[in-house]
Amino acid sequence: MNKKIVIIGGVAGGATAAARLRRLSESNDIILIEKGEHVSFANCGLPYYIGGIITNRESLFVQTVEGMSKKFNLDIRNFSEALSINRDRKTVTIKEVKTGQTYEQDYDTLILSPGARPIVPPIPGINEAENLFTLRSVPDTDRIKDWVDHNHPSRAVIVGGGFIGLEMAENLAHRGISVQLVELGEQVMAPLDPEMAAMVHKELKTEGVDLILNDGVTAFKNKGREIVLQSGKELQSDVTILSIGVRPENELASEAGLSVGERGGIIVNEHLQTNDESIYAIGDAIEVKDYIQQTPTMVPLAWPANRQGRLVADHIHGKPAAYRGTLGTSVAKVFKLTVAATGNNEKLLKRLGKSYETIHVHPASNAAYYPGGSALALKLLFDPQTGEILGAQAIGYKGVEKRIDVIATAIKGQLKVWDLADLELAYAPPYSSAKDPVNMAGYVASNVASGELRIVHHDEIDEIVENGGYLIDVREPEEREIGKIEGSVPIPLGELRDRLDEIPKDKTIYINCQVGLRGYLATQILTHHGFEAANLSGGFKTYQFGKDVAKTIQYQ
Amino acid sequence: MNKKIVIIGGVAGGATAAARLRRLSESNDIILIEKGEHVSFANCGLPYYIGGIITNRESLFVQTVEGMSKKFNLDIRNFSEALSINRDRKTVTIKEVKTGQTYEQDYDTLILSPGARPIVPPIPGINEAENLFTLRSVPDTDRIKDWVDHNHPSRAVIVGGGFIGLEMAENLAHRGISVQLVELGEQVMAPLDPEMAAMVHKELKTEGVDLILNDGVTAFKNKGREIVLQSGKELQSDVTILSIGVRPENELASEAGLSVGERGGIIVNEHLQTNDESIYAIGDAIEVKDYIQQTPTMVPLAWPANRQGRLVADHIHGKPAAYRGTLGTSVAKVFKLTVAATGNNEKLLKRLGKSYETIHVHPASNAAYYPGGSALALKLLFDPQTGEILGAQAIGYKGVEKRIDVIATAIKGQLKVWDLADLELAYAPPYSSAKDPVNMAGYVASNVASGELRIVHHDEIDEIVENGGYLIDVREPEEREIGKIEGSVPIPLGELRDRLDEIPKDKTIYINCQVGLRGYLATQILTHHGFEAANLSGGFKTYQFGKDVAKTIQYQ
Repeated sequence: MNKKIVIIGGVAGGATAAARLRRLSESNDIILIEKGEHVSFANCGLPYYIGGIITNRESLFVQTVEGMSKKFNLDIRNFSEALSINRDRKTVTIKEVKTGQTYEQDYDTLILSPGARPIVPPIPGINEAENLFTLRSVPDTDRIKDWVDHNHPSRAVIVGGGFIGLEMAENLAHRGISVQLVELGEQVMAPLDPEMAAMVHKELKTEGVDLILNDGVTAFKNKGREIVLQSGKELQSDVTILSIGVRPENELASEAGLSVGERGGIIVNEHLQTNDESIYAIGDAIEVKDYIQQTPTMVPLAWPANRQGRLVADHIHGKPAAYRGTLGTSVAKVFKLTVAATGNNEKLLKRLGKSYETIHVHPASNAAYYPGGSALALKLLFDPQTGEILGAQAIGYKGVEKRIDVIATAIKGQLKVWDLADLELAYAPPYSSAKDPVNMAGYVASNVASGELRIVHHDEIDEIVENGGYLIDVREPEEREIGKIEGSVPIPLGELRDRLDEIPKDKTIYINCQVGLRGYLATQILTHHGFEAANLSGGFKTYQFGKDVAKTIQYQ
Repeated sequence: MNKKIVIIGGVAGGATAAARLRRLSESNDIILIEKGEHVSFANCGLPYYIGGIITNRESLFVQTVEGMSKKFNLDIRNFSEALSINRDRKTVTIKEVKTGQTYEQDYDTLILSPGARPIVPPIPGINEAENLFTLRSVPDTDRIKDWVDHNHPSRAVIVGGGFIGLEMAENLAHRGISVQLVELGEQVMAPLDPEMAAMVHKELKTEGVDLILNDGVTAFKNKGREIVLQSGKELQSDVTILSIGVRPENELASEAGLSVGERGGIIVNEHLQTNDESIYAIGDAIEVKDYIQQTPTMVPLAWPANRQGRLVADHIHGKPAAYRGTLGTSVAKVFKLTVAATGNNEKLLKRLGKSYETIHVHPASNAAYYPGGSALALKLLFDPQTGEILGAQAIGYKGVEKRIDVIATAIKGQLKVWDLADLELAYAPPYSSAKDPVNMAGYVASNVASGELRIVHHDEIDEIVENGGYLIDVREPEEREIGKIEGSVPIPLGELRDRLDEIPKDKTIYINCQVGLRGYLATQILTHHGFEAANLSGGFKTYQFGKDVAKTIQYQ
């Protein structure tokens, strides 16, 4: 029963599907159609090649057409564009890009892996901008790198603060170019909540990136050399990268009558079949379910694409294969900082009207007495009733994505927040503490979920104090000198037990310290002495980052 | 209901219990009895202070007696030795070390956290050895550091290749001392299986450590300057560290009639109570259950001690608290190498007669095209029938303990090997690959568990070939030049499909490549063409490390 399987799109998911299909059968015809020259190239590496971090262009090609054809006995047709799917006769019309000739290729099973393309909005002057680039493919990469190599730009503007925008900011800066980053929203990196993104903002500023938030481009002038923003500000640019997001390549699918969702993603069932069961779709072009909420979403990342490629091949071969949704685990290097997240963020949970609680901790990446460690900001989102873990975000210089990986694993293992406290993780001074940051987040979240600890959040405390709330700052005087919450009453932790009679008995007492730990102790002391007390989660540190975002919004 | 809680031992578990007890109640009397000067010091940091990596001695003191007393309102009595437990009248007899005076301290609840002490066997000349040290406490550390600082030793001998032995080897080498390491067994680092330990052996040799395996000390001569080994070899030493293991401090418990196990550990129930329910015991001194097998074991590590300290405090306060056993997740830095493990190893599973399977993979720590990545050796142990994950070991230069933490979390989440393939872990080129090493191990293990892939192991293949087995090496000729398995037939993967008629049809065909990946492809090709085929797990790389151990055993 020799089958003819045609795959459209030879990167990530498409290439994975082809390789897996061959491992499962030697007899099927596997035809890989790719519009561009290259298959299975390293899309996630492209910014680093432009930045000169990756020096060898050849290393971007994970597989060559020739090598992959031979290894997996594939019929790879590059420079071939699929023009239409003719479902009635189960064929695809293909154009040979170089010759312009077209032909029909029949299939028994079709896999669509077309990906997504950068959004290019119809901004006045955009078509005349000679120095404007988007980044998706190897030719895009070559164009940007050529431009930088030959024109030696001194000023770059990045439009859009997502993963590609930030990676390009870092890589252009690495080449000695002065970078301005324009972001329409109040923050970069959508997977993060604002108080966490504020740490990324700080890093960008520290590294000399001029970050312009809450602003967008209204016009390109002088062949793109001048960029006019909504705010009226005008930027000079020698090279501009447009990275405001991607749009699924859904035309082929929708023109063939395959269902496409509101967000433009091709609709698939859990076996990744479209509404035509002989046509599968995978990767950036499809709509997936959010793993936790099971609501529709689009997550253009490499892991889901590769996983889906594998599952489709398995399903075609009659193996049980179901894709349950995407957690959206992600990580980015932003200069020296590592930023990682998994699951739902607070913005999403709010929008969906879900019941959730959050805690912030700032533990050290490894034993404080061992050199090279540094603080890690970890935010955990959970259901306070059930203890279900809903998501996490982490930022720092070391051991960041490790903690997110552990939490992503815990989510798939259906562990609860109290189970995080019970995770037995690898400890030696260079790597962690005897109580790992994930353990610590688990302890704090369990204390909150069990009602042992009442907390208040960084974005609530100002209003509380303004309305007459009593806030005790249990830090030492020298810490307050660096910064404090207006209206807070200083009582260092060590003096608290002796000064209980200074504290009003008739109202809730709020506590803050630097990162939340001493505040927790103080909250417990007060509670055991009959006070109603609540701790500021994440302490002054989280509060301060929360304020930084607020400031940006207000004054920009 | 004011309670008097006495804790014996102020490090790790004892200190954690004290702090947690206070957080749960302001009214109880909490008395912490510590024989030495220091409480809550950084035991795991001691080797690094000797090595000069940690430069500030003060940073070893996580808490001071004064600071901790004040913060947690504790009655800390250092320089106080518990001489006996008088269970009939619920008191402890305590000796003030400095004055010699004794007194009885009554308790409602007693927590034993005495730890374990280094084993010092009665080897001839050991008491006369002036340059011989063990390492457990801050005074031990000071003695070693003083000796090194003042005597400028040029040659050190480490006896025992466990965690402390290896960390001391690295730290003494870091001070410019030439190090010899003597280990009685065939390998260092007991949590590892031999073929994995062989990589540690290689690193030690690369770093100039003279590793002497399968040998022990029979005598110290010339005040310890000469060390005679079982093999007859004589070593010269300027400073010797004895680190052959620890023995639980169980005398206080056993003399009070508390049950002690075969291994010397104090016996406790799942609430960490001894056979006297008002006496708890925690830390290195107790016998625990292996988390996976639920068999008794001793695991002297920091995480279990701290976790147990917390649980005991919770249980005393009527909270549900149970300790389910120790996974034994561990990590060590051995020069540039990171070595980590969790769960059961093959040696244990064999001894227990359990059904298990193992796979070896050698993926890159991060995207191969991004600089700074390096190969990671990952061994996964699992039940091939149920898919249950039994343990894992990982060795490499980057991202090592991250993968072990993920697998340790997967074990606690009761995930199966096929779930490892489905873990959505954080990917960007500096951190991982779109298919993380853990995903890859999951895929290989699933293929084996499902019967899709038949494998053979590094320690079986020589015998198979000797008995006429047909082994194909699918690597390229230039790879074979560097090393090959004797008797293997070279057919590069790319030529396999064209040379099928050279391969015998009447017997099982064994395949090897470099790390197992191409071998897997070759095995699938042969299987689909009607051959019986099996892949050498971990390829030539794992085979070679397996041979290195064998060689050491044979020739040392």
